[in-house]
Amino acid sequence: MKVLSTSKSHGGIQGVYSHSSEVCACEMTFAVFAPPQAVEGHVPVLWYLSGLTCTHANVMDKGEYRRLAAELGLVIVCPDTSPRGADVPDEKDNWQFGCGAGFYVDATQAPYAKNYRMYSYVAEELPALVAANFPVDMSRQSIFGHSMGGHGALTIALRTPGRFRSCSAFAPIVQPTTAGWSRPALEKYLGSDENSWRAYDATLLIEDGHRYGELLVDQGTADGFLQDGLRPWLLEEACKKAGIALTLRMQEGYDHSYNFISTFMDDHLRWHAARLA
Amino acid sequence: MKVLSTSKSHGGIQGVYSHSSEVCACEMTFAVFAPPQAVEGHVPVLWYLSGLTCTHANVMDKGEYRRLAAELGLVIVCPDTSPRGADVPDEKDNWQFGCGAGFYVDATQAPYAKNYRMYSYVAEELPALVAANFPVDMSRQSIFGHSMGGHGALTIALRTPGRFRSCSAFAPIVQPTTAGWSRPALEKYLGSDENSWRAYDATLLIEDGHRYGELLVDQGTADGFLQDGLRPWLLEEACKKAGIALTLRMQEGYDHSYNFISTFMDDHLRWHAARLA
Repeated sequence: MKVLSTSKSHGGIQGVYSHSSEVCACEMTFAVFAPPQAVEGHVPVLWYLSGLTCTHANVMDKGEYRRLAAELGLVIVCPDTSPRGADVPDEKDNWQFGCGAGFYVDATQAPYAKNYRMYSYVAEELPALVAANFPVDMSRQSIFGHSMGGHGALTIALRTPGRFRSCSAFAPIVQPTTAGWSRPALEKYLGSDENSWRAYDATLLIEDGHRYGELLVDQGTADGFLQDGLRPWLLEEACKKAGIALTLRMQEGYDHSYNFISTFMDDHLRWHAARLA
Repeated sequence: MKVLSTSKSHGGIQGVYSHSSEVCACEMTFAVFAPPQAVEGHVPVLWYLSGLTCTHANVMDKGEYRRLAAELGLVIVCPDTSPRGADVPDEKDNWQFGCGAGFYVDATQAPYAKNYRMYSYVAEELPALVAANFPVDMSRQSIFGHSMGGHGALTIALRTPGRFRSCSAFAPIVQPTTAGWSRPALEKYLGSDENSWRAYDATLLIEDGHRYGELLVDQGTADGFLQDGLRPWLLEEACKKAGIALTLRMQEGYDHSYNFISTFMDDHLRWHAARLA
């Protein structure tokens, strides 16, 4: 693991690191905020998964999580959203596929299967690296994310029962298998057999019997992607049928940007901290 | 005035606006955060001046001022740091002069005198525009800034007695007339007669009899510009001689970045809000 930068913030350390990923077959960059409490001992860890076009840096710069994470004593890990580099196949000028658009799946189709394995990267390889290199208590983990990263958080939490004490999302893509901005990517990563897509769709995972204790979702009503891309009512319906306690809060006038995320960041941090205590 | 974007944040509105500036003879962009209280009536306004290389956007993205400004009911205005555009003379690849490096002076030398008039822009033209277009109580103004913008805040406050109820700075350039990164710019903007530079140097303004009630300055000890560029002890010495109540806080381990600014943003907002009440 390489240390790319560290900077003191709110009494803790905001670092950026990279490592040679076996899973993604390229160098991967990620951000870790270690709160002041991490000097004294192992602390809980909260995973934040970012949305389309983002790297580790967007939420690090604009998410406004450090003040309260420092107070609550949470490590915050922010992975990248895809493999990157000269050897990674990409579609230039397509922001919904390839670099910045890994969709937290393990691709099975050539030429993407070699690098685009963000499910295994986020669920397995990076946690092992973080556990080995940071003062984290891996028995106390939670996960959240935004948009494509909200989809990632929900699907990973649903597929790894017992791993995450809590899961929440800002404006998640709740049903990527039917949304216009994700279907082409899923087909290229996973092939045309749509049954193989079900493992990467929160509503279909629930339909297929996966369960989770409770979920928190915030969604802005002025979000331009609400009607076609996000559609939280589909998650609401799935949770209702399955008896999953979903708290869905429609937030009047908020858009899809980091202004929305940062506004409700404190609520989410407190939600997770209460469950990580 | 053109509205470039608005986005709901922490119950208020973060907007970005532009206008045709007479003073700078170009289109100028600036950011305004209006807290929820601004819907009900006129509220105090706090000016934030940014540092070298920045636009209005850096502190808007990374400064983490909105949560508490919304709570305290403060309008936050973030101007650009220089004129910009195809017609504005600039030195490419020089981050200490020209675009992004206006140093809050009114240039007197050709070809810069036409556009580089950031002192008058920030002290006169933009306040008039903001007063005319936003619900601000101009009898309750304060000012702060970072690095070059800390220099701007200190010099403008010292030169406009009674205008700003309070003034603070993060890692300000306290004596630009003797610092290596500002002397070449001052010479190009103002000419070789160094007497004309004194109006743009906080320590020399104090030496020349300007006074201010009290000042708050935070400075990181791990700031790479501390020894050569910033040197807060020069301000400390000037304030001591002049009987100005300076609170200078050396913050252990903090660097020059927005991680430093955002860490102490709450303290500065509360300091100003108490004096704007």
